Amino acid sequence: MNKLTHLNKDGQANMVDVSGKDITLRTAEAFAEVSVSDELFYKIRNNELEKGDVLSTAKIAGIQGGKKTSELIPLCHNIFISKIDVRLELNEEKNSVEIYSFAKTNSVTGIEMEALTAAAITALTVYDMCKAVDKSIVIKEVKLISKTGGKSGNYTIDN
Amino acid sequence: MNKLTHLNKDGQANMVDVSGKDITLRTAEAFAEVSVSDELFYKIRNNELEKGDVLSTAKIAGIQGGKKTSELIPLCHNIFISKIDVRLELNEEKNSVEIYSFAKTNSVTGIEMEALTAAAITALTVYDMCKAVDKSIVIKEVKLISKTGGKSGNYTIDN
Amino acid sequence: MNKLTHLNKDGQANMVDVSGKDITLRTAEAFAEVSVSDELFYKIRNNELEKGDVLSTAKIAGIQGGKKTSELIPLCHNIFISKIDVRLELNEEKNSVEIYSFAKTNSVTGIEMEALTAAAITALTVYDMCKAVDKSIVIKEVKLISKTGGKSGNYTIDN
Amino acid sequence: MNKLTHLNKDGQANMVDVSGKDITLRTAEAFAEVSVSDELFYKIRNNELEKGDVLSTAKIAGIQGGKKTSELIPLCHNIFISKIDVRLELNEEKNSVEIYSFAKTNSVTGIEMEALTAAAITALTVYDMCKAVDKSIVIKEVKLISKTGGKSGNYTIDN
Amino acid sequence: MNKLTHLNKDGQANMVDVSGKDITLRTAEAFAEVSVSDELFYKIRNNELEKGDVLSTAKIAGIQGGKKTSELIPLCHNIFISKIDVRLELNEEKNSVEIYSFAKTNSVTGIEMEALTAAAITALTVYDMCKAVDKSIVIKEVKLISKTGGKSGNYTIDN
Amino acid sequence: MNKLTHLNKDGQANMVDVSGKDITLRTAEAFAEVSVSDELFYKIRNNELEKGDVLSTAKIAGIQGGKKTSELIPLCHNIFISKIDVRLELNEEKNSVEIYSFAKTNSVTGIEMEALTAAAITALTVYDMCKAVDKSIVIKEVKLISKTGGKSGNYTIDN
Repeated sequence: MNKLTHLNKDGQANMVDVSGKDITLRTAEAFAEVSVSDELFYKIRNNELEKGDVLSTAKIAGIQGGKKTSELIPLCHNIFISKIDVRLELNEEKNSVEIYSFAKTNSVTGIEMEALTAAAITALTVYDMCKAVDKSIVIKEVKLISKTGGKSGNYTIDN
Repeated sequence: MNKLTHLNKDGQANMVDVSGKDITLRTAEAFAEVSVSDELFYKIRNNELEKGDVLSTAKIAGIQGGKKTSELIPLCHNIFISKIDVRLELNEEKNSVEIYSFAKTNSVTGIEMEALTAAAITALTVYDMCKAVDKSIVIKEVKLISKTGGKSGNYTIDN
Repeated sequence: MNKLTHLNKDGQANMVDVSGKDITLRTAEAFAEVSVSDELFYKIRNNELEKGDVLSTAKIAGIQGGKKTSELIPLCHNIFISKIDVRLELNEEKNSVEIYSFAKTNSVTGIEMEALTAAAITALTVYDMCKAVDKSIVIKEVKLISKTGGKSGNYTIDN
Repeated sequence: MNKLTHLNKDGQANMVDVSGKDITLRTAEAFAEVSVSDELFYKIRNNELEKGDVLSTAKIAGIQGGKKTSELIPLCHNIFISKIDVRLELNEEKNSVEIYSFAKTNSVTGIEMEALTAAAITALTVYDMCKAVDKSIVIKEVKLISKTGGKSGNYTIDN
Repeated sequence: MNKLTHLNKDGQANMVDVSGKDITLRTAEAFAEVSVSDELFYKIRNNELEKGDVLSTAKIAGIQGGKKTSELIPLCHNIFISKIDVRLELNEEKNSVEIYSFAKTNSVTGIEMEALTAAAITALTVYDMCKAVDKSIVIKEVKLISKTGGKSGNYTIDN
Repeated sequence: MNKLTHLNKDGQANMVDVSGKDITLRTAEAFAEVSVSDELFYKIRNNELEKGDVLSTAKIAGIQGGKKTSELIPLCHNIFISKIDVRLELNEEKNSVEIYSFAKTNSVTGIEMEALTAAAITALTVYDMCKAVDKSIVIKEVKLISKTGGKSGNYTIDN
C-alpha cells in the first residue's frame, strides 16, 4: 500500500491534513457589496419588492449558506461552526447594500471560507430578490476583512 | 381556508408562482473576476499551489454549485438544468482569474441565478485554493452578462 | 433479468412508479399550530426574542424545507415545485402560532408532502427560536387542509 | 471594522455564539403522535400498505432527518451527534403511531432540535407511506419530553 | 462575449447540453454484489447484527442515494426520477448479498447513473451495517445490466 | 419515559452510541477498480473523452462524496474529517483505473466508510465520464485496504 504514501506532487487537488493542528479559537470577517440602481435602492429601503423583504431573507440565506461551505468548496473541512452572523447595511451614498459577515470556530483550521461563503450567498440572494427590477446589479468586492487565530496568526485587510 | 388567498402584501418573502408560465429555452451567462497578487498569479499559472490545480478544481466546484442554486437561494425554483458550463481564463494584464459561466434550461423560469451561483462558487473555490499564499484576494464584479428567453426577453449588459 | 419484474410483495419500501401518470396542476394546503405560554406569546408578538424575529425566520426555513421534501421523505419524488408559500399568524385566543402552507406544481404526482414538510419545518423553527424561554412548546395538528388535481381528485378536510 | 461589533439589536435572526460554552454530555427525548383511521391502523399493523413497511422506513427517515437538523433549522449549529434513535409503537387504544426519538451529543450546545426534527420527519414519513389510503391523518403533539446536560440543566415535561 | 462560444476543447470537465434532446421514457437496471464471510452471511440472513436489519436499511439508503445522483456525480443532470427500486437477495451459494436496482424517468437524458448510484450506496450501507463483524467484505461487480430509451437505444449486458 | 430505555432488540436499524468512546487518531485506506475496454482505456489515458478529464474530475467528486458519507449511509456519524485523499492510477496491464482513497480523523469512531464512499463515488464518476463510449464498464473490488486507530485496533487486508 505504499502507493498511498506517495505525495500528490502533480498539481492535483489536495485537501490539507489538519489532524496535527491545534484547536484554537478562530474568527473571520468578510465583506461583500451589492451595487444597485437608484430605483432599486429606493425599493429595497422601502421594502417594496414583489419578492419581499430583501434584507431579512438574504441574511438568513447567508447564515445557512455559510453552514454549507464544506459542501460547496471541494477542499474545505467540515468544521464545527460556533457562530455565523451576517449584517446588511444600506449605503445611501453609493446606492449599495453592504454585507458584513462574521464566523467563529474552535477548531483545527480557520473559518475564512465560511465567512466569505456567507457573504457571497447573502449577496446572491439580494440579487435574486431584486433581479425582476434591474438586471444590471453587480456584486462587488467579496473579500476577507480580518481573521484571528491559527498558526498563520491574525490578519487585517489594508484599506 | 380563505386566509391563504390573502396575498402576501406585507413585505415578507414571497416565491413567485411560475405554474402559469410557458416552458421556453432560456440561457444565462455570468462573470466573476478574482483579483490576485503577482506572486499568486504566477503560482496559479504554473500550477504551483499546495492545494493543487486551481482552475480544474474551481471549474468542477462551480458546476456543482450551480446545481445547488435552489438549495442556496431561498426563493429560487428547482428547475431542470440542461447545461452548466464554467470557463476560467488567466488575464495577465490584470493579474486576475476571469470566470465565465453559462447555464441553459427548458423551463418556466429563468436560469440567471444558476449562472451567477456557478460563477460565485467558482470564485470562492479559487480563493480557497490560494488563500494560504495571499489573503488579500478580492472577488470582483460578479454580474450577469446576458440572458435569453422568457417573458422579459433578452438582456445583454452594457459595457 | 426477470428477477426485477417480480413486484415487491413482501412489504418492503416501494416508491410508486409515476411514469405513466398525467401532468396536471396540483396544489396542497397544510396547517400546523405551535402552542406556547403566555410569556412566550408576548415575546413573539413583540419581537423580543434573543434569536430574533421568529415569524420571518421560520417562514423562510419553511419554504426552504419544503424544497427539500424529496431528500427527507424516502419515497417522495423530486418534482418541480412551482410555488411554496408559508404564512404565520398569531392567534391571541389560543396563545398559538398558526402556520398555513401552500404548494403548487405541474407534475405527475401530488404536492401534499411538500406542503406538510414546509409547515412542519416552519413549526420546528418556531420551536428553535423560542426554546430558550420555554421548553414546553407543543407542535399540534400538522395536517393537510386541502388538495386539488390528480387522479384522486380534490380533497378538503372536515372540520 | 467596528460595525461588526454592534450587536444585532433590531430583532433580526441571530445565531447564538457557543464558542465559550463547555463541552458536556447532553441528551434529549422527543415525541410525536400520528393519529389515523381504523382502516389505516389495521393496514399499518398488518404491513398491508402499497408503499411498504411504514415503521422501518419511517424510522430510518427519522434518523437521517435528525442528522440534517442544522441544514433545516436556520440558527442550529452543526454539532457532532453521538447517537439518534427513533422508535415507533402502535397504540391500539388511540389508533395512533407513537414516535419516541432520542439524541445524544458531547457538545457545547444542546440536542433538543435534533430529537424533535427526527420525530417530526418520522411522522411526516408515516404520513407519506399512508396518504393514499387516508388523507385525514393528523400529526399531533410533537414535543420535547426531556433533556439533560448543559447550563440550563435537566428538564422533564409535566404530564 | 464570444469567449463563451469557444467550445471546451482542452479536456476540461464538460456537462453535456441536453436542451435539444427529446423527452422519452428511459429505464436502467444495475447490479452490485457484496461478498461476505460465512459467519456474516449467517448473521445477515438471521437478522442478528447489532446495527439492525441490513436488507431493509440498505434498500432505503439505496433509494435515497439514487435520488442524490446529480449532487454526487459532477456532470449528471438533475432529472426527474419517476421511480427507483432496489431489491436485495441473499445468494447462499456465493455467500453474497446481490443488489438489483432499477430506475425510470421521462426525461431528455438517461438514468443509468441513478441506477448505478442506488446500487453502490445500497452496497456501501450493507458494508456499514456489517463491518463490526468482518472488515474483509468486498463490493464486487457494480455494473449496468440494461438500459432502454434514448438516442443510443437499448442495451443489455453480455453475460 | 421508560419506554425509551427498552433497547432495540428486534432487528431494527440502530445507530451505535459513540458518546463514551475515546477520541483517537484514526485512518482508513480503501480501493476501487474500474475495468474498461481497450478503446476506453486509450481515451482515458489520452484525455480524449467528450466529457473531459476523467481523472481530475473523478478525484474531486470522490473527495466531495467522502464528505457526504453521513448523509448517504443511514447509521454513520457526522464526524469531523481531517483529510480525504483520492488518487487514480491507470493500470495498463489490466485496462483498469485503480482508485486509492485515504481518510483521516481525530474522532470517537472510525473513518472506514468515508474512505469507501470516496472510492465508490470516484468510481461512479469515472463510469459517468466514460459511459457514452462503452456501457460494459465494471466497478470491481471496492474494499477496505487498511485501518488504524480505535478500540478494534489496526487492520490490513490479506492479499
